[in-house]
Amino acid sequence: MARVIVDVMLKPEILDPQGQAIARALPRLGFSGVSEVRQGKRFELELDGPADEAALSEVRKMAETLLANTVIENFAIHVAE
Amino acid sequence: MARVIVDVMLKPEILDPQGQAIARALPRLGFSGVSEVRQGKRFELELDGPADEAALSEVRKMAETLLANTVIENFAIHVAE
Repeated sequence: MARVIVDVMLKPEILDPQGQAIARALPRLGFSGVSEVRQGKRFELELDGPADEAALSEVRKMAETLLANTVIENFAIHVAE
Repeated sequence: MARVIVDVMLKPEILDPQGQAIARALPRLGFSGVSEVRQGKRFELELDGPADEAALSEVRKMAETLLANTVIENFAIHVAE
């Protein structure tokens, strides 16, 4: 049993209206000091087996196929501590 | 300039239909070995200043106020390397 995290974020050159809406809301709520916000997705996958190289390779294929739209999104995979 | 990450996930006791849909789709796509999927949100905040204790305390307040619904969601804050 291992937990693998897949973080999916819009590519830097893709407009992120959700993030912009949050960035604009912060000053109205009295917060300052944040210049940019980007919103993405986080997936936690519980694996049946260990997070070895073969399993992580499978997770990479899952991310490319289902979790991320690689035309507009980047993803990063890491094993949870 | 520092980048702070806020990860927001549904609390473990809260049903996650999005994650369940992904978990059910994986075998149909030929993937095996994943027992559970949870989907959450990831926010990347660019700070004007350094990610010191005062700034992280502000980010914590932003998460409680705007980024997470603390009735049903947990959040975690960490500074991006």
